[in-house]
Amino acid sequence: MGISLGPNQYGKAETRVVRIDRDGPEHQIHDLNVSTALRGDFAAAYLQGDQSLVLPTDTQKNTVYAYARERGVGQAEDFALGLARHFADDVEPVRAARVDVDEYGWERIAVGGEGHAHSFVRTGQEVRIATAIVEGTGAAQATWVLSGLRDLVVLKSTGSEFAGFLRDQYTTLAETHDRVLATSLTVRWRHVRPEADWAGSYASVRQIMLERFASLHSLALQQSLWEMGRAVLEAHDGIAEIRLSAPNKHHFVVDLSPFGLDNPGEVFHADDRPYGLIQCAVTRDDAPPAGASWEPPASFA
Amino acid sequence: MGISLGPNQYGKAETRVVRIDRDGPEHQIHDLNVSTALRGDFAAAYLQGDQSLVLPTDTQKNTVYAYARERGVGQAEDFALGLARHFADDVEPVRAARVDVDEYGWERIAVGGEGHAHSFVRTGQEVRIATAIVEGTGAAQATWVLSGLRDLVVLKSTGSEFAGFLRDQYTTLAETHDRVLATSLTVRWRHVRPEADWAGSYASVRQIMLERFASLHSLALQQSLWEMGRAVLEAHDGIAEIRLSAPNKHHFVVDLSPFGLDNPGEVFHADDRPYGLIQCAVTRDDAPPAGASWEPPASFA
Amino acid sequence: MGISLGPNQYGKAETRVVRIDRDGPEHQIHDLNVSTALRGDFAAAYLQGDQSLVLPTDTQKNTVYAYARERGVGQAEDFALGLARHFADDVEPVRAARVDVDEYGWERIAVGGEGHAHSFVRTGQEVRIATAIVEGTGAAQATWVLSGLRDLVVLKSTGSEFAGFLRDQYTTLAETHDRVLATSLTVRWRHVRPEADWAGSYASVRQIMLERFASLHSLALQQSLWEMGRAVLEAHDGIAEIRLSAPNKHHFVVDLSPFGLDNPGEVFHADDRPYGLIQCAVTRDDAPPAGASWEPPASFA
Amino acid sequence: MGISLGPNQYGKAETRVVRIDRDGPEHQIHDLNVSTALRGDFAAAYLQGDQSLVLPTDTQKNTVYAYARERGVGQAEDFALGLARHFADDVEPVRAARVDVDEYGWERIAVGGEGHAHSFVRTGQEVRIATAIVEGTGAAQATWVLSGLRDLVVLKSTGSEFAGFLRDQYTTLAETHDRVLATSLTVRWRHVRPEADWAGSYASVRQIMLERFASLHSLALQQSLWEMGRAVLEAHDGIAEIRLSAPNKHHFVVDLSPFGLDNPGEVFHADDRPYGLIQCAVTRDDAPPAGASWEPPASFA
Repeated sequence: MGISLGPNQYGKAETRVVRIDRDGPEHQIHDLNVSTALRGDFAAAYLQGDQSLVLPTDTQKNTVYAYARERGVGQAEDFALGLARHFADDVEPVRAARVDVDEYGWERIAVGGEGHAHSFVRTGQEVRIATAIVEGTGAAQATWVLSGLRDLVVLKSTGSEFAGFLRDQYTTLAETHDRVLATSLTVRWRHVRPEADWAGSYASVRQIMLERFASLHSLALQQSLWEMGRAVLEAHDGIAEIRLSAPNKHHFVVDLSPFGLDNPGEVFHADDRPYGLIQCAVTRDDAPPAGASWEPPASFA
Repeated sequence: MGISLGPNQYGKAETRVVRIDRDGPEHQIHDLNVSTALRGDFAAAYLQGDQSLVLPTDTQKNTVYAYARERGVGQAEDFALGLARHFADDVEPVRAARVDVDEYGWERIAVGGEGHAHSFVRTGQEVRIATAIVEGTGAAQATWVLSGLRDLVVLKSTGSEFAGFLRDQYTTLAETHDRVLATSLTVRWRHVRPEADWAGSYASVRQIMLERFASLHSLALQQSLWEMGRAVLEAHDGIAEIRLSAPNKHHFVVDLSPFGLDNPGEVFHADDRPYGLIQCAVTRDDAPPAGASWEPPASFA
Repeated sequence: MGISLGPNQYGKAETRVVRIDRDGPEHQIHDLNVSTALRGDFAAAYLQGDQSLVLPTDTQKNTVYAYARERGVGQAEDFALGLARHFADDVEPVRAARVDVDEYGWERIAVGGEGHAHSFVRTGQEVRIATAIVEGTGAAQATWVLSGLRDLVVLKSTGSEFAGFLRDQYTTLAETHDRVLATSLTVRWRHVRPEADWAGSYASVRQIMLERFASLHSLALQQSLWEMGRAVLEAHDGIAEIRLSAPNKHHFVVDLSPFGLDNPGEVFHADDRPYGLIQCAVTRDDAPPAGASWEPPASFA
Repeated sequence: MGISLGPNQYGKAETRVVRIDRDGPEHQIHDLNVSTALRGDFAAAYLQGDQSLVLPTDTQKNTVYAYARERGVGQAEDFALGLARHFADDVEPVRAARVDVDEYGWERIAVGGEGHAHSFVRTGQEVRIATAIVEGTGAAQATWVLSGLRDLVVLKSTGSEFAGFLRDQYTTLAETHDRVLATSLTVRWRHVRPEADWAGSYASVRQIMLERFASLHSLALQQSLWEMGRAVLEAHDGIAEIRLSAPNKHHFVVDLSPFGLDNPGEVFHADDRPYGLIQCAVTRDDAPPAGASWEPPASFA
């Protein structure tokens, strides 16, 4: 009837590093939020308060900044990989390292039609995300890389139905063959290998998902997600799996009949809560094992 | 030694109305957050709980939806004006009405290089804002219209100084002739007249501000704001006044010397708090009176 | 047809200072968020980028920390006053200084029924706020002090009506003589003099408002606010004016009749948006002038 | 080289139900945020857009409201269990149901020293959470219940060290034997059986954690978490496992030496980001299997 320490990890969350590449006349900017998490031989820190095997989270933060200088940032996936490999390879007690990166987009301010060399404006709401997980060392080392995005908000003003659904004694919803479909996509995809054209594949995956969402006559948000995921996997051999999480942001047709007005799908109330929440994975049948890829990065409890 | 009711107002905040114009093959979308506030003969509601002169906030919400159907939305300023005039003109106890609108941007999803007819993706973080204030009725009626934006996030990676400042016994800041300058702009401008090419002037004001921010070698955020405001007034006779509020989002050069690394303005920590907060008005000398334009819309207490 | 600099101010927002008093065996904690704003002879910073009269916002932050050490924090109002007087008195170009303080509450963790000497847990959601404004110097110096709170969330499950209201063509709301009334109070009160028993009056004002809210059979949120404000002024000669801002957080009775169930005021949907927003001032007839007391602290544009 | 649908779930998130029990003179209030998620035979909805086995999320919302009326709310764990069992037992395509509940605390407003019968004020920031997971039907049905809390913010102003840690080339942190230790706890504990005195065990677990946090001289946040978790398991046979997630909310001693001031642990800057993030499980050796207990409730991708 003993009591034991179970799974545990620790790290530094949300180190906000901005890297300016200023070698040429045109500056480049990388604006990141980096979180590191380590697993390994850390039981003594819990059980006896013995820190002798604990690399401080402050050191992890320092490492993020130093790597940004020494190696540059480049693509978020590579930056995450470099850091995760460092922790797994160079810090003895570490058995596995996970690095999560959020990247915020910037574009050049147009002055006289030309992009300015060192002045920028933040782009859309969406955030590009990248994760690297490295377990073990040497020949036994395993590596996973995930790319993704969140807060990509999309809407179809027609071309969406919801009908023919299961009914029970608590069902009041009317069927509809023309509704507004809106969601804020969080999507992550797992790569077959830890090297790829990260920027190119990101842009391609984003565009494929947008086009599929736009073009598909949707019978359900579930169907839209599946079709988006499938289209990504069909186009990208290097992607093993994709997971989509999509709140159904309900837009309700306002009843204007008390005011003598019809409302043929023109005026909607955009509601906050509750919302549907549809989540699915689309996988390649020969995908390599996922390991710890889908364990939640920061919401352990 | 009496106690009296002082200034008061009431209304419906944050009615989330989405209007789809679906007359042609290409849908248009207007995505608004509308707040209404009324002032007038409402003392009895406070003093005796007598509601006989109080138009319910629920009715104000209904009116927003009904107007979106009856008149369409079009430009946010016109929509706000229509509503404010209605409350001032048609609801007897109302002495003044204020309508604040936030508008969220959408653009067409590109499919095969063409904008899709009814599928959209949210654009950048920034929010377009519009306000109409109408006081009185008939010949004595006064009207103010403000346009603006918030959450326009900009950054210069060089071309910004901060030096030669006042020092006292609590000053430790080093002078710098090359720093990162970043801010998230909230800007509102007051129009001379309640009619204008709202869409055109909005796009022009936004672009002027961005270009001026980018092009100016900045000696202080104060100077950047003044120059941006002045450039807007110089280009737009129809704008009486512009007010800018700009948090100085500090980017600190990380000291990498403990790791044997220099840091020539390349690696920064983007800090959250505290932040400088610089706020100013730029006014045309012959501007008409501002009335209640700059009273805070929703933070009365 | 000139263009001029209008009203302007600058300062350091949201300096997060925590002061531990550790003189005796029982530690005391003051957890503050301090914002400073200065007005004065700062035109050259805007017009020419000349900083020679500008005390950096970094210095203002340093001053907050140094004052917390030199003078301690004590009551938030006194801390704000000390800082505002310093900026007005000791920094030559400053004509007026405003200091806004948010204070977060902590209580001792009970161990074996006794409050622990140096371990604390955060108390309720509400935030205590204090503001000091100092204009001018010497004999001509004017001072205002405001106290307040925000995010005090209260609810009555009965004892609230809304009926007898004005109706127009957009009114559909049913009258009710028994509803849930809920709000999140933001309240600020202006003191007659810049000295008082701040802690005692805060506790008293908070309790008076809660009791009045609870005891009053409410015919409208407007009436509740007036009665709460009036009760405060009647009990506190030293308070010149109180302003209350109260979102009407709607709780809708859910229609359960499709499931063969009645709903006699038992099951509600708590909606997010839109919400009513009721705002009023209650003033003592012989109150001294308010000066800049009610200008918005941080939302200039 | 096929492509398949992987794990998937759907449900209604954040149904905000408030239940007033008004049978006696003293009303009771339960203020919940309920999220439901279903797994089962839903592939056709994704693959063909066929909704015939899909119970709408709107129906799930209705069920939450109807259950609140039919059965009352009572303890959050029981309410979650009732709903999860209903979906698993009564909705044919459902193979597993998960219900997550956030409960917001209210206390009676004191009027003349007595708690008011129907007027309430929200209590502290922390949120009580409960989860029920039901898989299968009949004799093969498996059930898990988790209780927990989030946003319980605690601080020790002394009695905390961090020293003797591992160093590498990126380590600059100084050792300390007296620091401020602060965190915002998110904790969930898994019960051995799906029935218990939920209210009593919640209050006890919370108090044990607070007391242990307060009393322990902490050598690391890791040690504090372990000791808190162990103390809970030692006192509660009915708890199989507890998981704690704790951001290390750094409080930095401000260097006041430039102003001729010392700072013996009295003035701190409370920083926002980055923060350490320490997460661990404490488990009973004979705990029953966890099943899907620790899969993230809502962040699938």
